[in-house]
Amino acid sequence: MLNLMEITESNKKILINELKSRVTETEQEILLSVNEILSKVKKDGDKALFEFTKSFDRVELTNLEVSSKEIDECFSEVEEEFIKALEEAKVNIEEYHNKQKSNGFLMTKDKGVFLGQRVLPLERVGVYVPGGTAAYPSSVLMNVIPAKVAGVDEIIMVTPPDKNGGINPYIGVAARISGIDKIYKVGGAQAVGALAYGTESIKKVDKIVGPGNIFVATAKKLVFGEVDIDMIAGPSEILVIADEKSDPSFVAADLMSQAEHDKLASSILITTSKELYEKVEIELERQVKTLEREEIIRASLKDFGSAIICKSIEECIDVSNAIAPEHLEIMVDDPMKYLGMVKNAGSVFLGRYCPEPIGDYFGGTNHVLPTSGTARFFSALSVDSFIKKSSFIYYSQEAIIENGEKIITLANKEGLTAHANSVKVRLNNGSL
Amino acid sequence: MLNLMEITESNKKILINELKSRVTETEQEILLSVNEILSKVKKDGDKALFEFTKSFDRVELTNLEVSSKEIDECFSEVEEEFIKALEEAKVNIEEYHNKQKSNGFLMTKDKGVFLGQRVLPLERVGVYVPGGTAAYPSSVLMNVIPAKVAGVDEIIMVTPPDKNGGINPYIGVAARISGIDKIYKVGGAQAVGALAYGTESIKKVDKIVGPGNIFVATAKKLVFGEVDIDMIAGPSEILVIADEKSDPSFVAADLMSQAEHDKLASSILITTSKELYEKVEIELERQVKTLEREEIIRASLKDFGSAIICKSIEECIDVSNAIAPEHLEIMVDDPMKYLGMVKNAGSVFLGRYCPEPIGDYFGGTNHVLPTSGTARFFSALSVDSFIKKSSFIYYSQEAIIENGEKIITLANKEGLTAHANSVKVRLNNGSL
Repeated sequence: MLNLMEITESNKKILINELKSRVTETEQEILLSVNEILSKVKKDGDKALFEFTKSFDRVELTNLEVSSKEIDECFSEVEEEFIKALEEAKVNIEEYHNKQKSNGFLMTKDKGVFLGQRVLPLERVGVYVPGGTAAYPSSVLMNVIPAKVAGVDEIIMVTPPDKNGGINPYIGVAARISGIDKIYKVGGAQAVGALAYGTESIKKVDKIVGPGNIFVATAKKLVFGEVDIDMIAGPSEILVIADEKSDPSFVAADLMSQAEHDKLASSILITTSKELYEKVEIELERQVKTLEREEIIRASLKDFGSAIICKSIEECIDVSNAIAPEHLEIMVDDPMKYLGMVKNAGSVFLGRYCPEPIGDYFGGTNHVLPTSGTARFFSALSVDSFIKKSSFIYYSQEAIIENGEKIITLANKEGLTAHANSVKVRLNNGSL
Repeated sequence: MLNLMEITESNKKILINELKSRVTETEQEILLSVNEILSKVKKDGDKALFEFTKSFDRVELTNLEVSSKEIDECFSEVEEEFIKALEEAKVNIEEYHNKQKSNGFLMTKDKGVFLGQRVLPLERVGVYVPGGTAAYPSSVLMNVIPAKVAGVDEIIMVTPPDKNGGINPYIGVAARISGIDKIYKVGGAQAVGALAYGTESIKKVDKIVGPGNIFVATAKKLVFGEVDIDMIAGPSEILVIADEKSDPSFVAADLMSQAEHDKLASSILITTSKELYEKVEIELERQVKTLEREEIIRASLKDFGSAIICKSIEECIDVSNAIAPEHLEIMVDDPMKYLGMVKNAGSVFLGRYCPEPIGDYFGGTNHVLPTSGTARFFSALSVDSFIKKSSFIYYSQEAIIENGEKIITLANKEGLTAHANSVKVRLNNGSL
């Protein structure tokens, strides 16, 4: 099912660009309708939210907030083993993200000068959680836990109501386990508008995170600047590097674990063994029939599944660096030997027993990762995503006397005499 | 010259929103012409750069790269005292930014499991440096030094040529002092296009930073995603908190130091003393006449200069937090007493002898700061701006045997059976 490619020095750049070109432009129609929804929410607040919920979600609400009792009910609807697994995942995710916390610093210098940097949590964060078939409780944990660890004061969740005005019970459970402060039954672009501008019920936030459909993603782009947003996620990607000893059933299973997300998902095998590739093809056929999303997997592999044969694991990694995948598996005996060569990858899964879903659900690392080659410059969602850094500096009178003339020289050469003047008045005690 | 405002509980929100609403939309005409320039550069490479340079900069070039000899010449054109001041500033900026470096981490767990995070520098970064009157050598240092400290392999500068095909000598000097690898004579949206897509002469970069006019800013927005960009800077802002003992000549000078940047710049005095405000007004008139940019300063203060009287320094800081200024001065005797209350500010200047230009040129903190209230969620340019973080995880066979069923439970509840399957094949050694 994979498209076999032979990479040579001459076609390398073109092939790699092809592998990456899955991003589509937002249609103007969507842009205009999202813009209108945002304007209405900004102007009419809750009233607009109730109206849009009625027309898009087909349910008439009089109150947006999910009560504590409703969440209790979610717990009674959900299997005990699910709750226990999610709680254990939470512990692992928290433990990993705790290590990401950073401290400010203070430097002292001569003449009483000191300067430094403080790390401050964002005050209020909004998390968007899709409803319906795209309701992923694991994403609730992945978006909320880093914010909690960062020390965000208040975390608000928005999620679309179902036809009966309820919320997905798995989402309700995940929200309470991860420590959400408030949940509102509102989805789509209108929910993003509510978080960005604030309404009577929903307070304005500093940052909006979480996945959503094209309307949600477009709304996030449009409110960026008014609030911060996380990355706009593209279709999922997996790149598996495997050697001749790799188990073809493992390789095939892992490629399909991302292919099932989306017809636009990209699954790439890079291997030193053409024989392995051939066995993987057989395994894909054997396994795909047993999977619920067979149709999506077949479509995704047909359009964006590839296999590339290289001469060495080093060359495999070289090609992977050019692709900069979201998920990279290095399925060899001594994976640590190669980690240092990996320059561009959102998250790396090492060894033969570390399929990517370990990171999606349980291992502790974050599953919100850079897609579409942006691992060249973007990072996973992390504690850093929920803090800001603010610098400070103190100068004494003696220090400005010592350094003032240099600052005046630099400012004057830039033609900024008012900048120079602010130093001069201090050197001259108010005289010009 | 300042607009005196009385903040009450009832008008607080409206007043603060007014203070912040200076951002203008990009005109469609500019968007379209920038988009066309970018397309041409993407398609025609260097040829397009030469053409646009001819029509926009009125100079015909045959080679874009600035030679080492040209930079030698810059040094001979620039005053010794300027070079020395810039070199000392570099040392201070480097020292401060060195403290920002962060380390990765590794956690080990039971059954051989380990996971962690690596900190990797971006490989190649482009710095845009304006020409003409907006050519600020200090900005070269502020943009380049954090990238150097982060460990970026290659830093490329682009700057528009003058009519004779040369570059501003102060910029040339700052480029060499800060450690730029290559300089190209190209400006405007075409330079941003060259950095984003690459041409025959100029290599594609991972991130573009640096200030520029509306064409440059629009081009950066449009290539975002293809490469990373820094913040789009809005007009400069200063907020001075001063008590009754503050020297009005200092306060007035500092307010004007930002007002001179731009007619849209915002200068706000918040004080506990109406008497101080009155004296500041007199000082503004006295000092403004001596400054080169008098006209800009008068226009900026008229439209966006404000004075707010509060009952206490605590209340001053409360209002400042709501405004989230780019630069905040706390001009009191014991400024450290208040630093912990400051929640939202790009950079804080403490005490009576620490005017904001110390941070612009010399102190060591970065002068690329969040504007327009975005200090609520954005930070200054820093070493963090030039790194990415990549996570990794290793699972042993024993570890997946222990935890596999929980992962299968979580994946199945999300309807992702291919995710579950990647664990199953490992638990069952390839059987389904």
